[in-house]
Amino acid sequence: MRIEPQISAANQLALRRLCDSEVVLEDVQPCGAVVPDFSPDLILTSGPVLSWAEYSGGQREALIGGALFEGLAGSRAEAEQKFAAGSIRIGACQAHACVGSVAGIYTASMPVFVVRNRTFGNLAYCNLYEGKASARLNYGVYNEEVAQRLRFLAEAVGPLLRAAVRAAGCIELTPIMTRALHMGDELHSRNTAASFLFADALFAQFVGLLEQQVCRADTVRAVHRFLTEDNYFFLRLSMAAAKATADAAHNIPYSSLVSAMAINCRSFAIRVSGLGDVWFAGEHADLREAHMFEGHRTEEVTWMGGESVITETVGLGGFAQAAAPALQAYQGGDVGTMQRNNESMYAITLGEHERFRIPYFGYRGTPTGIDLFKVMRTGILPVIDAGLAGRDGGQIGAGVIRAPRGCFERAREAFLHQYGEVADNNTHPEPGPLAIGRSS
Amino acid sequence: MRIEPQISAANQLALRRLCDSEVVLEDVQPCGAVVPDFSPDLILTSGPVLSWAEYSGGQREALIGGALFEGLAGSRAEAEQKFAAGSIRIGACQAHACVGSVAGIYTASMPVFVVRNRTFGNLAYCNLYEGKASARLNYGVYNEEVAQRLRFLAEAVGPLLRAAVRAAGCIELTPIMTRALHMGDELHSRNTAASFLFADALFAQFVGLLEQQVCRADTVRAVHRFLTEDNYFFLRLSMAAAKATADAAHNIPYSSLVSAMAINCRSFAIRVSGLGDVWFAGEHADLREAHMFEGHRTEEVTWMGGESVITETVGLGGFAQAAAPALQAYQGGDVGTMQRNNESMYAITLGEHERFRIPYFGYRGTPTGIDLFKVMRTGILPVIDAGLAGRDGGQIGAGVIRAPRGCFERAREAFLHQYGEVADNNTHPEPGPLAIGRSS
Repeated sequence: MRIEPQISAANQLALRRLCDSEVVLEDVQPCGAVVPDFSPDLILTSGPVLSWAEYSGGQREALIGGALFEGLAGSRAEAEQKFAAGSIRIGACQAHACVGSVAGIYTASMPVFVVRNRTFGNLAYCNLYEGKASARLNYGVYNEEVAQRLRFLAEAVGPLLRAAVRAAGCIELTPIMTRALHMGDELHSRNTAASFLFADALFAQFVGLLEQQVCRADTVRAVHRFLTEDNYFFLRLSMAAAKATADAAHNIPYSSLVSAMAINCRSFAIRVSGLGDVWFAGEHADLREAHMFEGHRTEEVTWMGGESVITETVGLGGFAQAAAPALQAYQGGDVGTMQRNNESMYAITLGEHERFRIPYFGYRGTPTGIDLFKVMRTGILPVIDAGLAGRDGGQIGAGVIRAPRGCFERAREAFLHQYGEVADNNTHPEPGPLAIGRSS
Repeated sequence: MRIEPQISAANQLALRRLCDSEVVLEDVQPCGAVVPDFSPDLILTSGPVLSWAEYSGGQREALIGGALFEGLAGSRAEAEQKFAAGSIRIGACQAHACVGSVAGIYTASMPVFVVRNRTFGNLAYCNLYEGKASARLNYGVYNEEVAQRLRFLAEAVGPLLRAAVRAAGCIELTPIMTRALHMGDELHSRNTAASFLFADALFAQFVGLLEQQVCRADTVRAVHRFLTEDNYFFLRLSMAAAKATADAAHNIPYSSLVSAMAINCRSFAIRVSGLGDVWFAGEHADLREAHMFEGHRTEEVTWMGGESVITETVGLGGFAQAAAPALQAYQGGDVGTMQRNNESMYAITLGEHERFRIPYFGYRGTPTGIDLFKVMRTGILPVIDAGLAGRDGGQIGAGVIRAPRGCFERAREAFLHQYGEVADNNTHPEPGPLAIGRSS
């Protein structure tokens, strides 16, 4: 039986869902109050769940830090013992409609954005950016300074945003994202314009809250500064929006859409829309272009998790790199390479986004919806913009990576096993023809 | 006597002054209270001053509208009679350190930005953007709706901005402009990011003013919305900043820097740093690329003045077009043409800006400081981004224009007359080799 017509129809539906998704921020609440199937003894982390013994490096440190911050353990030793015994449980962010930045630690008291896909009804969640210090819990560091910032998020940022968002009814994220792409953002490693647009969208509510004297002027000033002081606040909203969008295109039988990509300390993994909730894991990604922060070298780069790559699955990040030439200064590379990278993604995607457009490409829609079979046929691997973690913790740079081949091979085998042979079953044996340059 | 060494030294100094200028917003005040040599019977307008009989079309309408708004006349007939008799006087914006957008009408009660060049001490002024309606006084329209918006500027926007700016001490404009170039603005026809950054810079002051109950929440909300509701609020700050910068490089003996360009209803004119305050006028600019608003045609385009082209003289606008690919949607054209236009400006400028940089050009500094002799030698004429006025008033589109050749020829003759022959005295007889395309 020829299954190509079913695949094609399923993929058209999947692309339709990605393009039609309109996403809004509905609320900001403590994780424990809203995230599905959450419980106080649970900590969520990035990538497919591993046994405690398999967690190493920064991801292990981040889990321990999360346990200490949440008061689930009084010491490192106690935390390690409880993780090993299973009395502190570890869950996968994406199994709970969450999405993790780097190590991606969610504990019960942390505030999360509650984002709804208004078109299809489903919800997604993301916790909040920790600020511009290199040392952050999601980058595998926990100390008093990190704890203080996490408390600031829980006690000041979360509640004020909650009040502002609820006063507004909701904040529409899709128009902010659409516009930010015309203002130099690609919404993964650059969220500068989106952060200002988001802060601006809350302005009238902040004034209203002050008018009604339900918050202090000092708090409003501090939170506003936090929203805009660097390039990253909006990333967590972009991630939640991408998750709410990608989930709406997940679980479509016969669809070969890559509906999520995720990293843990051991592997790079993908999910495929037509193959349910199974993760197909393989070797780590390939670092192609890096700009290291002062005092750091590429040899220090380590993988401690990461699911912000959900943005690439919906046509953003590396798939919109050409919209963000200013990224050169942050993650290295040159404009020509960024444009070629971006352009090459049209060969592995289901189509072009109808809202997310790149002025530099004459307002062409971003390449959207990674197709497992197109990746295998062309040998072109997804381009991803990424923050880089150091082996001693902290963010030590930023760069461009390519998704690795192994996870796609495994997913392809599973697809053929489940649905039967496809006619155009040859795979490209070599890496893609469009190589990425290295920074000189 | 060879004068090339003097010219070269003078031009180096001129470029140095353009690059070294740091500009701040110090105050917002009624025009009559701060603009030098202003008096209540004076109205400033764009371009070299003409006799009343020579003002025609939208610029004449704008002058009459200004007289009515200011209460200098009770009717059109009375206004016309008073202009003819000289009992309402007409002045040139730039003779008063002001700079006019389109017709550029300044009357005593209109609020103006007071902008200081902190490096060189001089001040410049610009009045405020009237809002996104097509019909505006500076586009040659005066009616009750226009008057209402002008009153909103004088009664709400000006005073609140004044209070906020004074509470802040000053607002640094140079960092906002530098950053906006990385966010898709070129600071003439696109000021989207800069407008948000400016509103953001005032946020803490707005909160403080509410806290001290010196202003109403409704006013703050209305003014904030006005700052960010479209792409243009910051233009008047960009113009004032450019004027404060260009004036610091004006009046340098032997310098062939074009230190101002200006349009009135009769001509396009330039000033040259080494030739004092004389305007060299000639035929109007050439419209190369136009995007007309719905219901309008290019045949309706008319010249009613314009000095926002001061931005081009300091390395912005058309000289930074490649930073703003989103402008395609607004003013037509395509990215390739915009980049070639922008790149061709390096051939007619004294050097590259050290702060204003274009990510798309690998963060190369913008081409800065138009050199009269380079324009004449290469035949390449300055590229200008411009709003387009209609013969019946109002903004009817936006586009790309080329400065005309005549004014440069006249200035060159005057330069040679004043300073003596230059060795490399050949001029390019033809239009520049880099033609601009037309929208299909």
